[in-house]
Formats: sequence, C-alpha cells, structure tokens
Amino acid sequence: MELESKMLGTKIVRKKGVTAKDPILVEGLPGIGLVGKLAAEYMIKELKAEKIAELYSPHFPHQVLMLKKGTIRMLKNKFYLWRNPNGSDIIILVGDVQAVTSEAQFEVCGKMLDYFTSMNGKTIYTLGGYGVGKFVENPKVFGAASHASVIPELEKKGVIFGETNGSIIGAAGLLLGLGKLRGIKGACLMGETHGGYVDAKAAQSVLGVLSRILEVRIDMSKLEEKAHESEKFMKKMEKEAKKHSEMSGEMLGDSDITYIR
Amino acid sequence: MELESKMLGTKIVRKKGVTAKDPILVEGLPGIGLVGKLAAEYMIKELKAEKIAELYSPHFPHQVLMLKKGTIRMLKNKFYLWRNPNGSDIIILVGDVQAVTSEAQFEVCGKMLDYFTSMNGKTIYTLGGYGVGKFVENPKVFGAASHASVIPELEKKGVIFGETNGSIIGAAGLLLGLGKLRGIKGACLMGETHGGYVDAKAAQSVLGVLSRILEVRIDMSKLEEKAHESEKFMKKMEKEAKKHSEMSGEMLGDSDITYIR
Amino acid sequence: MELESKMLGTKIVRKKGVTAKDPILVEGLPGIGLVGKLAAEYMIKELKAEKIAELYSPHFPHQVLMLKKGTIRMLKNKFYLWRNPNGSDIIILVGDVQAVTSEAQFEVCGKMLDYFTSMNGKTIYTLGGYGVGKFVENPKVFGAASHASVIPELEKKGVIFGETNGSIIGAAGLLLGLGKLRGIKGACLMGETHGGYVDAKAAQSVLGVLSRILEVRIDMSKLEEKAHESEKFMKKMEKEAKKHSEMSGEMLGDSDITYIR
Amino acid sequence: MELESKMLGTKIVRKKGVTAKDPILVEGLPGIGLVGKLAAEYMIKELKAEKIAELYSPHFPHQVLMLKKGTIRMLKNKFYLWRNPNGSDIIILVGDVQAVTSEAQFEVCGKMLDYFTSMNGKTIYTLGGYGVGKFVENPKVFGAASHASVIPELEKKGVIFGETNGSIIGAAGLLLGLGKLRGIKGACLMGETHGGYVDAKAAQSVLGVLSRILEVRIDMSKLEEKAHESEKFMKKMEKEAKKHSEMSGEMLGDSDITYIR
Repeated sequence: MELESKMLGTKIVRKKGVTAKDPILVEGLPGIGLVGKLAAEYMIKELKAEKIAELYSPHFPHQVLMLKKGTIRMLKNKFYLWRNPNGSDIIILVGDVQAVTSEAQFEVCGKMLDYFTSMNGKTIYTLGGYGVGKFVENPKVFGAASHASVIPELEKKGVIFGETNGSIIGAAGLLLGLGKLRGIKGACLMGETHGGYVDAKAAQSVLGVLSRILEVRIDMSKLEEKAHESEKFMKKMEKEAKKHSEMSGEMLGDSDITYIR
Repeated sequence: MELESKMLGTKIVRKKGVTAKDPILVEGLPGIGLVGKLAAEYMIKELKAEKIAELYSPHFPHQVLMLKKGTIRMLKNKFYLWRNPNGSDIIILVGDVQAVTSEAQFEVCGKMLDYFTSMNGKTIYTLGGYGVGKFVENPKVFGAASHASVIPELEKKGVIFGETNGSIIGAAGLLLGLGKLRGIKGACLMGETHGGYVDAKAAQSVLGVLSRILEVRIDMSKLEEKAHESEKFMKKMEKEAKKHSEMSGEMLGDSDITYIR
Repeated sequence: MELESKMLGTKIVRKKGVTAKDPILVEGLPGIGLVGKLAAEYMIKELKAEKIAELYSPHFPHQVLMLKKGTIRMLKNKFYLWRNPNGSDIIILVGDVQAVTSEAQFEVCGKMLDYFTSMNGKTIYTLGGYGVGKFVENPKVFGAASHASVIPELEKKGVIFGETNGSIIGAAGLLLGLGKLRGIKGACLMGETHGGYVDAKAAQSVLGVLSRILEVRIDMSKLEEKAHESEKFMKKMEKEAKKHSEMSGEMLGDSDITYIR
Repeated sequence: MELESKMLGTKIVRKKGVTAKDPILVEGLPGIGLVGKLAAEYMIKELKAEKIAELYSPHFPHQVLMLKKGTIRMLKNKFYLWRNPNGSDIIILVGDVQAVTSEAQFEVCGKMLDYFTSMNGKTIYTLGGYGVGKFVENPKVFGAASHASVIPELEKKGVIFGETNGSIIGAAGLLLGLGKLRGIKGACLMGETHGGYVDAKAAQSVLGVLSRILEVRIDMSKLEEKAHESEKFMKKMEKEAKKHSEMSGEMLGDSDITYIR
C-alpha cells in the first residue's frame, strides 16, 4: 500500500488496482450504543472482507494509539471489500473515530463519497442506533431513506419507516444527505437502543435486517453470544433501576412506577 | 435542478435559466422571536412564490433531518422568486438555520450576495425582531438602513428610525453591511418583540410595513389568526409573570411592581 | 473610496493615490484600560489626521452597529494619515475590535503590515496599558522594543525598559513581533494602569511620551480633562475599596491593610 | 538568517546552506512533567548544539514574550544541530509551545517532517513523560515504536515496551505517526513520572537511555543536581500526601493506605 507524503487535508490511502462490482457501501462508524460499529465490524470478520483503503484526517484527534505489542498507530477509518459471488460487492466502512466539527464532517464525508463514487458505488446503507432512553426486549430497526422510492423494498425486509423524528448526526446522516446531492440512494438503518450503553443486541437486529436487504448470509452465532451478554447486562441494569426507582417511589409514597417499562 | 458533486464550501444550487426583473431581496432566516422567519415564510405561501435555489453549507450543523414520510433531508437555506406583475420581482430567502461563527457567516452571506447580484439585485430588506424584554400591545417596526438616503421613503411607510441601538447580529445585519460594501442599498426591518418567545404578532407588524414598502398586497388573514394566538399566549404569560411578581412583591413587602409594565 | 466586491478574507480598502513620507505606524486598538485606543483616537482628533484606509475582516464579530442616525455600519479598523511638515509622516491605526483567535490575529496583523510596508513604513509604535491591579498616581510608561538598539533613544524620552514581564497579547504585541520578522523596528509603549477600568490618565502619560518620541506637538488640554475625570473616578474607587477592605479587615480582626497601597 | 515576509501559515526560517549527515531527530517540546523539554534542552546545552532553524506558526498563541533586557520575541520552536564526529548527526527540536487544535498540530508536525526529510532524516526519537499519578523512585523509560522492527535494539538499551496503554497526545505522538506514513522509523521514549509536577529525574532517565541509543556521551552532572532537587521535592510532596492521607484514613477508620505506594 503506497503512502502519501503530506497530511494537510483528509487523505484516503487506497490499495492499488482494486476494483469492485456495483459496490454497496455499509457504514458503521462509532455512534449511539456503538450499534453500527458492532454490526459492521462483525460483518467484516464473518465475511472475511479485505481491507482496501485507509482514511487519515487532521480533523481526527492529534494523538496516536499505543498498541500492546509496543508500537503506535494513527487514528483512522478503514474500507473493507467483500466480493459477492451472487450480486453487488460490499464495501464496509469502519473506524476509530468521527470528526467533531461540522466543517470537518463535511470534508471527511465528502472524501468518503469521492472514493465510493470512484469505485462506481451508487447505494449506501448507514448503520446506527436510535436512542429511546429505555431497555428494549426486541429492538426494532427503524429506517430513514434518502429517497421515498427506496422505502417499500426496505419495508419488506423489516425496516420500519415514519416512526422516528429529530435528526441523524454525523456520518450516518451526512453520507446519506451529501450522497443524495450526488444522486446516490440509500438509507440509515437504526437499531432501537437505550442510548447509554453499548448494545450488541440492537447491532444483531440491524445486521439481521441488513443481511436480508443485501441477500447475504451472515453467521450470527458469535454475535448472538454478545447480544445475550448485552441483554443480561441490560436486564440487570433494568432491575437495579427498578429497585432504585421503587425505593424512591416508596419514599415518595408513589407505588406506580411508569418510568421503567 | 442540477446538483453539484462536491460540498467543501458553501454552495448554491440554482434552478437553471431563471432570471428576475430588478429583484429585491427579502431575508427571513431564524432569529429573535422568529419574527423574520414567520413573516418571510408567510409571504412565500401567500404569494405562491417559486423555489429557485437552495444553499447548502459545511458551516451548518452536520446532521440531516428525519421527515415524517420516512426520508431525510440536509439542512439548508432557500431562495424563492415571486414575479411581480406591477414592479420589481421579489426574491425571498428563508431556511432552517444560520451559520454560527463569524467566518462562516461572512462566507455564507458573501455567497448569498454573489447569487443576488448575479440576478442583478440592488435592494435588500432583512427582517427580524428587536427584543425589548417585555410584551408589547402594538409592536412598532424599527428600521436600520444601509444608507441615510433610504430612510425618508421608509419612514413614510411606517418604519421608525433612530430609536434602536446596539448591533444587528447574523445575516440580517451582515447582508446589509456586506451589501453596502458592494453598493447595495437596503434596510433591516425589526418588529418590536419580547425576545423570549416566538412572536407572530411582531411578524404581522413587519409584514404589514413590508407590503406597503414593496407595494405588494398580501392577504393577512391567516397570519392574523397566528398573531391572535401569539397575543393570547403573551398576555397569559404577562399575567402569570405579574401574579408571580406580585407574590414576590408581597413576600418582599414591596407593592409597587414596576418591572412588569 | 473604491470598495471591493468580496469579503472572504481580511481586506483593506484604501483611498487611491495616497502616499506617505517615511511613515511611522502608531497602533491604538482596544486593549487593557483602552489606554492605547484613547491615546490614538485623541491624537487623530488633535492632529486632524485624514482617514486613508479601512480594514474589514470575517474574523471580526458577525454583526453591524446601529448608529443614532438610523443607519448601520460594519465593524472595522481604520488607518489615518497625518502629514508631518517637519519629519516622518504618521499613520495611526484605530478601530472597534481586534480579532479573537490566534489564526485571525496573525492574518489581520499580517495584512496591516502588508499595507504599512507598501507605504514604505519601517517603524512601529504600538500603544497599550500595562495592568498592575491597583490605582496609580503618576502612571509610568513602560516599553518593550523589537530590537535592543531601539531602547537607548526611547529611554531618553522617558520610556522605562526592563521592568515588565509576561507577554503582550494581541495586535500591540503581534505587529511588533511579526514586524521584526520583516525587518521593521519599533516598540510597545505601555501606560501603567489598574487594568479593570478605562484609564484616560494612563493614555495621557503614553501620549506625552509618544509626542516626545515623534517630536510632534499635541495639545493635551482636552485629554487633561478626561484624565482628571479618570483620576477622580479611580480615587473614588480606591476609597470605596479601602473602606470595604477596612470593614472586612475589622470583621476579620485584621487592621493592617496591605492590599490597597 | 533570512526571514520570510509573510506569516499566514506555519513557517520554518532556516539558516542557509546547512546540511547534515543522516540526521536523527530528537523532539522535546513541552508536555507531561516537561520531561521531554528538560531532556532535550539539557542535551542542546551540553553538546553545544547550533541553532539551524526557527519555526513560527499562526497556531501558536497571539502574543509576544517580554524579555528581561526590554525586548520582545515571538513564540517559536527551534531546531538545533549537533555534528556527530562518530555517527549520525543529531537535530534537536525544542520550543515554547505546541499548537492546541488537531488541525494545527497536523500542520505544524507536517512542516517539521518536511524540514527533517529535506535534511535527509530517516529516524525520529520523541521524548516525553508517561504519567502514572504517583511518585516514582527509579523512573523507568517506556517506549512506543513506529515499527515492530525498531523494538529489539531499543530494548537492549533499556527501553521497556508493551507496558503502556492509551495514546500519545501532541507532537511526540504525531511526529511518529505522520512520520510512519512517510516511511520514517522511530520511537517515543517516555519517562515514568507523576504527571502533576515538573520532573527532572524522569528527564534524567530518558536522557540516559537516549544517550545509549545514540551512542553519544552526555555529561549528566548538572542534570543530576536538578534531578536531586526534583526528587527531594517529590519526596516532600509524597510525605505531605501520606500524612494527609493517613489523617483522612484515620477519620474514615481506614489504616490501610494503598493509594500512596
């Protein structure tokens, strides 16, 4: 992998000579509950996707990570390619961080789209969590689409539209929004999640729906384990919260706990 | 509407082939009491003005809005055109947000002026609220002009000059100030308002004066309703404040309430 | 005065065809105690200096000032020229504001130096206050020079060197520091001042020394009045502080007040 | 030394005609415990290294320092060269400050690397402290390498790898990380330190290891004195902390103080 000599703007260092067949971009950068990140990283591992590019940016924190083996590395985002024998190839975007300011996010997402369109990509799915402030037994997967025309097909695969409001912050939103301005279609898939905890269960829901959309079989067994751990942890937290809440309730003479469902 | 492929600076995406006759710019972006925004949006609706351009900027927040129908859209500002059969055409500028930093405001307002001058525009009216920190029965419309020569004509239409002080922050001020450096004349029309609440009544005052200035008839009936709601709400708030203030006064042994007029 | 059409960087709008004879720059932008600003503005008025340029910057706050006559104006810095019949011409720099961030100060001061060197200027005096946190009967004028070679001559005119420490923040420091990198000589003249109040008396001290350095006669009578007002105000504040301090002292059983000298 | 006329970006002002033999860069800018700065400045003094370049940046604070002799100077970073009769020349980088934001650090470190590579440099050692939140009798020297291949040789000289975690913030990390992207090898050498105090003892440890790595003899006697002072100061602080901690412990009925080792 050839490396560039200057770093005054966001740079993508790409493996030479890589091409892809009608690639679909799946984004899973850090966000609410790390839902997107967990799903995308699991997908990379299970599909044994190959790293094809790294993105460095002066808008990422000015620090390097110390690794266990005694070396350091820059903070970065990474693109992986999975060659799909039965359909569109899949490019998966993951990484350590997102840029913080608006100007930086626009620059970084713009470069990502430059790269993706240079690979002839025309569809994007961004993954994330939709924070509901409470623990959820069976996390739904909400969607927000770039174009209305995208919705019916995704609804058939289990994505729920029109039940969310507010805004999607960061790359999960901006890749779709900026992509739309370039004629790229896609959707953000959001797993229903508490919002205050890492949530592998929501990641599992999102990945389940995504695999149906992409028509790609992904072995979920290892994520299942993590999801069970997440669930156990969340149930414990719920119980604690309930206990605490009941105690408070008794002290306040209030036995009707509605805050925790 | 053709869309640009990059988004590294503020961009205006314009409908092709649109021309205007000696256009006057009316700006109503979000500001104090949303006075300008309410007035400008009402004007667009009543005049059935046509959207002719959209402005996107990396200085706007890095998020996309989720719409009820399940789609997303970027935050933006918009230009509408109303073709005036009897005089100068009117371009109305509205939007979701303003940029936050000085540098960003200068860039965005500069682009707006580039666009407006490319349409041969030479006059700007910016709309806003003038916060007075109290509820006002009959909101005055204050003015601040780019040039002294503009004042007499506007005074005849009911704009009050010389009774304000301080500064005009954001696009309402900067479009005038930067416009002045380019030889554009105009004024900021400010409806007297509390400052802490959305105020359709002040918007109504501003729009009334503006329609006299532009010599454009605008049906005010629907804004009248909103203005009545605003008025009712504000009177209620005033009453609450008075009650609260009297209670505090009694507790302090002070029966002479001068804070609330 | 021709005006530029864009405002994406700091711009200096200069009166055409103005030249100056070996000009000396005197800077008096807002700073501690407004000492430099008061001195420079008084100098402009008394010498009837002529405005020869205006500086606008996107790094100044994004607002326009409302003037009493009902018009608005941009925030700006201004250059005035006084043609000296007996020696070097004097260019005086004053203004509403200074830029806030480092990057902005470097850009603005860089443009100021570009302009000054284009006028063949080679000497700079920046004016300011040196905050000592207490009221001073006879404010000294401290100096900090670009080059050691500058010091002896200034000492003869009453400037005290080597009694200050710390750093000089903003244009008063940066014009000297950046100027030094361009081969420009000069000094910062700092009037001893409390630091918490506007101080015309310190301004008077600075201006007195400066007029000796420049060998320019400036009628001080009107500044004298202001200085007396400043002095009266400061003595009153001192008395109040002393009273308050004694009261606190008594309450604390401490009769030895050393805080106020 | 020729000086540049503009200062709109980070600039390096270099002494003309200076060349170096396979130079190694040693960085010691301000950081945790000032460990790197103390070590690098001591090295410059002892080796009588010659100043060959100065770096100025608009990303450094917009102020100038007042010196005792009555002059001012800009904040800056400096490069010194020591011509090694027995091996690679050494370029030592020290300075007043580091840039604060990520974008600024990337720009400044990029310029440093441009300069270093223009001198044909291919190896970098950055010096710093590794904060452990407690006083250390015999500070270890931890390492974090650009490449795994660098580790074995450094371990032989006493550097400990694999016992640190987290990230290296600022130039000490970024010069390595960005350098790695340009094919430069090196390591960060971190002296174990409390983190809350200036620590000459940790600096001594780092310098001892560095002199073994560089195979350069450095007379440590003067640093030894400083290190002893640091040690005395730290022991005193430790005692104070212990006393305080025991008192708190007794009050809490807790006689087992483990916080202070």
